[in-house]
Amino acid sequence: MSWNTFGRVLRMTTFGESHGPAIGAVVDGCPPGIPLSEEDIQPYLDRRRPGQSRFVTQRREPDHVRILSGVFEDEHTGGKRTTGTPIMLMIENVDQRSKDYSEIARKYRPGHADFTYQAKYGLRDYRGGGRASARETAARVAAGAVARRIIPQVSIRGALVQLGEKRIDRRRWRWEAVHDNPFFCPDPEVVAEWEEYLDAIRKDGNSIGAVVEVVASGVPAGWGAPVYAKLDQDIAAALMSIPAVKGVEIGDGFAMAAMTGEQAADEIVMRNGKPHFLANHSGGILGGISSGQDIVARMVVKPTSSILKPRRTITTDGEETDVITRGRHDPCVGIRAVPVAEAMLALVLADHYLLHRAQTGQG
Amino acid sequence: MSWNTFGRVLRMTTFGESHGPAIGAVVDGCPPGIPLSEEDIQPYLDRRRPGQSRFVTQRREPDHVRILSGVFEDEHTGGKRTTGTPIMLMIENVDQRSKDYSEIARKYRPGHADFTYQAKYGLRDYRGGGRASARETAARVAAGAVARRIIPQVSIRGALVQLGEKRIDRRRWRWEAVHDNPFFCPDPEVVAEWEEYLDAIRKDGNSIGAVVEVVASGVPAGWGAPVYAKLDQDIAAALMSIPAVKGVEIGDGFAMAAMTGEQAADEIVMRNGKPHFLANHSGGILGGISSGQDIVARMVVKPTSSILKPRRTITTDGEETDVITRGRHDPCVGIRAVPVAEAMLALVLADHYLLHRAQTGQG
Amino acid sequence: MSWNTFGRVLRMTTFGESHGPAIGAVVDGCPPGIPLSEEDIQPYLDRRRPGQSRFVTQRREPDHVRILSGVFEDEHTGGKRTTGTPIMLMIENVDQRSKDYSEIARKYRPGHADFTYQAKYGLRDYRGGGRASARETAARVAAGAVARRIIPQVSIRGALVQLGEKRIDRRRWRWEAVHDNPFFCPDPEVVAEWEEYLDAIRKDGNSIGAVVEVVASGVPAGWGAPVYAKLDQDIAAALMSIPAVKGVEIGDGFAMAAMTGEQAADEIVMRNGKPHFLANHSGGILGGISSGQDIVARMVVKPTSSILKPRRTITTDGEETDVITRGRHDPCVGIRAVPVAEAMLALVLADHYLLHRAQTGQG
Amino acid sequence: MSWNTFGRVLRMTTFGESHGPAIGAVVDGCPPGIPLSEEDIQPYLDRRRPGQSRFVTQRREPDHVRILSGVFEDEHTGGKRTTGTPIMLMIENVDQRSKDYSEIARKYRPGHADFTYQAKYGLRDYRGGGRASARETAARVAAGAVARRIIPQVSIRGALVQLGEKRIDRRRWRWEAVHDNPFFCPDPEVVAEWEEYLDAIRKDGNSIGAVVEVVASGVPAGWGAPVYAKLDQDIAAALMSIPAVKGVEIGDGFAMAAMTGEQAADEIVMRNGKPHFLANHSGGILGGISSGQDIVARMVVKPTSSILKPRRTITTDGEETDVITRGRHDPCVGIRAVPVAEAMLALVLADHYLLHRAQTGQG
Repeated sequence: MSWNTFGRVLRMTTFGESHGPAIGAVVDGCPPGIPLSEEDIQPYLDRRRPGQSRFVTQRREPDHVRILSGVFEDEHTGGKRTTGTPIMLMIENVDQRSKDYSEIARKYRPGHADFTYQAKYGLRDYRGGGRASARETAARVAAGAVARRIIPQVSIRGALVQLGEKRIDRRRWRWEAVHDNPFFCPDPEVVAEWEEYLDAIRKDGNSIGAVVEVVASGVPAGWGAPVYAKLDQDIAAALMSIPAVKGVEIGDGFAMAAMTGEQAADEIVMRNGKPHFLANHSGGILGGISSGQDIVARMVVKPTSSILKPRRTITTDGEETDVITRGRHDPCVGIRAVPVAEAMLALVLADHYLLHRAQTGQG
Repeated sequence: MSWNTFGRVLRMTTFGESHGPAIGAVVDGCPPGIPLSEEDIQPYLDRRRPGQSRFVTQRREPDHVRILSGVFEDEHTGGKRTTGTPIMLMIENVDQRSKDYSEIARKYRPGHADFTYQAKYGLRDYRGGGRASARETAARVAAGAVARRIIPQVSIRGALVQLGEKRIDRRRWRWEAVHDNPFFCPDPEVVAEWEEYLDAIRKDGNSIGAVVEVVASGVPAGWGAPVYAKLDQDIAAALMSIPAVKGVEIGDGFAMAAMTGEQAADEIVMRNGKPHFLANHSGGILGGISSGQDIVARMVVKPTSSILKPRRTITTDGEETDVITRGRHDPCVGIRAVPVAEAMLALVLADHYLLHRAQTGQG
Repeated sequence: MSWNTFGRVLRMTTFGESHGPAIGAVVDGCPPGIPLSEEDIQPYLDRRRPGQSRFVTQRREPDHVRILSGVFEDEHTGGKRTTGTPIMLMIENVDQRSKDYSEIARKYRPGHADFTYQAKYGLRDYRGGGRASARETAARVAAGAVARRIIPQVSIRGALVQLGEKRIDRRRWRWEAVHDNPFFCPDPEVVAEWEEYLDAIRKDGNSIGAVVEVVASGVPAGWGAPVYAKLDQDIAAALMSIPAVKGVEIGDGFAMAAMTGEQAADEIVMRNGKPHFLANHSGGILGGISSGQDIVARMVVKPTSSILKPRRTITTDGEETDVITRGRHDPCVGIRAVPVAEAMLALVLADHYLLHRAQTGQG
Repeated sequence: MSWNTFGRVLRMTTFGESHGPAIGAVVDGCPPGIPLSEEDIQPYLDRRRPGQSRFVTQRREPDHVRILSGVFEDEHTGGKRTTGTPIMLMIENVDQRSKDYSEIARKYRPGHADFTYQAKYGLRDYRGGGRASARETAARVAAGAVARRIIPQVSIRGALVQLGEKRIDRRRWRWEAVHDNPFFCPDPEVVAEWEEYLDAIRKDGNSIGAVVEVVASGVPAGWGAPVYAKLDQDIAAALMSIPAVKGVEIGDGFAMAAMTGEQAADEIVMRNGKPHFLANHSGGILGGISSGQDIVARMVVKPTSSILKPRRTITTDGEETDVITRGRHDPCVGIRAVPVAEAMLALVLADHYLLHRAQTGQG
């Protein structure tokens, strides 16, 4: 793994800045012969795309993906299929609104990477956050769509389970509901309340945090590896690499601090001739390896740092000042993080599918 | 990164099973010329060693480390120093108590990796958990001691901040107190209560979860990297790779879900001519790069799965049965995870120190 | 290192097929602050470009490079500089001559990768060799130009030292001559003979092998590493990864088989107060680490497999047949391999410069 | 890949110096369930062991290997098998003859890594060459024996084909002969001449170079990968990483410089219903992928640098002096490089077997 590459044998390398000509990903290690065209990828990008509701940034990006390499349409068989060579996915930046960046260039926005990038590199592309922009996550979503094709037997879904102080009622969880509201919320009964809540925050020029949950169904027992290639380790790395994520948990996560060993044990019985777990506190992973149960992970996304409230900061010359961040920002960046989290989970699982096949020949 | 190697340019490869002849680590990429002898490493192992109180396993392991390579004592300069070649750290297993493993061989212990290892590999070393044993973490602690020598300007400390339902009062935090109680607890006033609490759990043959916090002071602004080598991503991977860890958070972590952007911004002022942050919600990391503030991370450790309470499970032949796990187990495995978490944080930071030096020449 | 990525901390990932819309490279790990624009890269591409003499393929590709990310023009400082983030270099394919590929699709061309790709992947992009095409090397040359900027103190030059049975006279070596003939030949007195020789081969529809030599001057003692990151190991991997290369040697290389230890020792004396080697049989590398002398490497490039001579082969259906490969081919693909070899050497050296800095802080 | 690790998914990490307590290797990524005990490894070490004839070093090392982890003897099934976890192979150093190293500590031996190690690290373990010693290759041979078990369908054999100016007659090649002479020479008729030749060199206190050839039979078409994970690229890296190796070639190698495309094409016909190549100029690899023919590679090993002839050099203080290297040295280090080359080829092939299985599911 290197600075801008994620994965072990299935590897995604992304490039691009918020206000450069394009962003994209090179996906390497994909098995050959998998049907793949832009139409398989675009729907996932459309879910992450800006401008779809008043609760997300109004930047207008079509996020149209092009596959520049790694697929081939054989005239005899028809239909594009992967060739086993690197798949280049490119997304052109369209709405790089011409703007005066002189203030951002001169002031470090609190909560952003401005100060730390400058400290590290001695310079930074300050236009729209440059490489630190959440725009990079579009490339992840495109690559994640490829990963899904590698493991079609696995279903990967995400949802927003907490918006600020508001949590869903898990007993009302309905996956279908996720598509029917602007929050990817699986509890349809809280949607109206969330809209009102987030509208108030948005109108106040403020922002709010959130918790995203992703679930993978259909992963057989045996994926992952002990010690330093644990499935949960890689999921933690994958989710923590998403901008603004400050915590990750698997299964019951932090709630397990207060549980006893008796409570936390996922007892096993036989059902229909197969091992069956009576609970899934472990989130589908034991000792770093999948158990055959649903893989369950959650991540917390901090509130958007770009707000209209003035905050104290300093200039690049070391003078104290105030800053507010005008522009087109998500009042809750956690919402659009849902398809990104799904993509990262898909990439980890497809990678471990291939790793498991490498070592054991299974799959 | 591969299955049993951790790190990017500073790389630790561990080996060994609970009941094999030895465990250990090969540390590769260490700078040359650093004074290093067994005496620099042993104190850290002693902190993690079993049998030091009634709250940890009674297995009697001296955990004596030997450096088999990578250091050299020049007769002219005197004192062993690293040579820049791989440092092999070996710890012999001594107390592999002769025991009847036929039950463990036949039954999957819930919460353990028995079922998943068998599913993955088709066989497993069932003696004491084999490679899945927490014994592997002794090798991490030894390697972590080497990492600390690479970045002596950084102080890395850990503490237990939650034991089951019991939390410390953070206002009473005293780092010195950590060394004075069997819990690595920084709040001396809760220790008596914790002893009583854990004694009851222990005598009941049960176990309990915990939360560990690790803090690194002295990290300058600029370590880490954007996107897929984020400092927090690597910390998350490092901590999640520790056995029984089910969640990781940085700074205010999951609490940030309920915070507004206004609250979460760590405002910056000038103090004594230097940038100064008025808060550290971000845990010392912004955009994956250190800000110069304390690095703060927490991890949740699930309750020990080995308990004396009978739990339902199945045999390797698919028959339903009960199992209890006799033996010498930690009633709260989170306690001994404290020096392990410190070691993993040290490894990540030393790695990023070298990475930062590679790319920028700083440091 | 993965399938389509080269390098350790400075990493190049290439993508693209001969007849796809574009090829390119993502260069990751480049230090920040280095002046870099398309004009710094284009001259190297121009040297490798097809169609410059009758001795190379007549495919008409402008090979115009665009930098899509990783550089930033600060209005205050002016001039584009690297930001430390991934540098995406894209070269569009222009001359994908519309052609009937049905014969190539059906027959395995001897010497080409047709048979082996089909065996591995079960399908292949047969248009112009797909990913196996030498066109991929344009991306290397672009990335190599970036690598040169990282180590401006090092001069990297290449030359053709053998064309078929014709060798240069090394006593007549003049680096300036390399630019004055279509062979990158450093011995001006053999050029006329080589022209006549290669013309005859070309007109005969045949092709011929060659030997390329690359030399790096200005590398200080200390780059490289022992055992599995040897400088010569990485140079060997780098050159052998170039299409059609079948052998690599360092310094006196295979000639050292017949030398005695007495002859082969590069004796050391002091000259002007500095260590000075009396010979350079070792090619500037001892124990995998640079000695401060010129780094000297050679590679053999096999004759172009695409020839107009009929060769026996089989079809994808397992029927015996003959094949000739019409089209625009290099009669000696070794010629255009010269700038590619330089680029690969530049990438290895820049990588090791950063690695050395990581471990030792030097440089 | 890192400094002391070799391989992609099957990874060997070695440690240890010539005069430290032990050397060894950690083999990671081995498939589970493979029968493996010390007896499977020891015979390969015995072939490389010093002191077996007057033509190799007289250092007396039993090179007894111990497996410290990664195998398990299940009482039910019997016999040790790999578990899929890291296999630690340890070889203790026994004959670290007590000796005065003050001269070596003070003088750089020409041809050795003394000067370059000192330049890189600022210090070095000068006893017997430290990490740069050929003793490290014992760990490779042990790891290579594990690799062979992963691909039992492949036969890997090596031979010395050139000793100084003396070459074998390839028409007399008999693999069985390799075991019957102290040179691993496949041409029994040259052995007497070689003995006389090398005896003269040895008695003169001199040394001589050699060429080693390794051949793998039974590799199916399809192993390897295009571009930066070419099978020949990895073989080149593997062989070039062996101490004293200065060149590597595949198939006809450097001889292909003087061949035409017509000559070099390995024509394909059908024989017994299967593709059959009429020649193997390519050494079993086309486009980086195995063709199903024998894999053929050669490497040149320079003459041993430790000789009794005085050579000019400098001291660490920069004074001119002479040096001769007394001690127990191989007059032709190429001889004992034969089993090392075999081991490295085995490691590359087993790695690519697993990589191929990862991406394609074949195998």
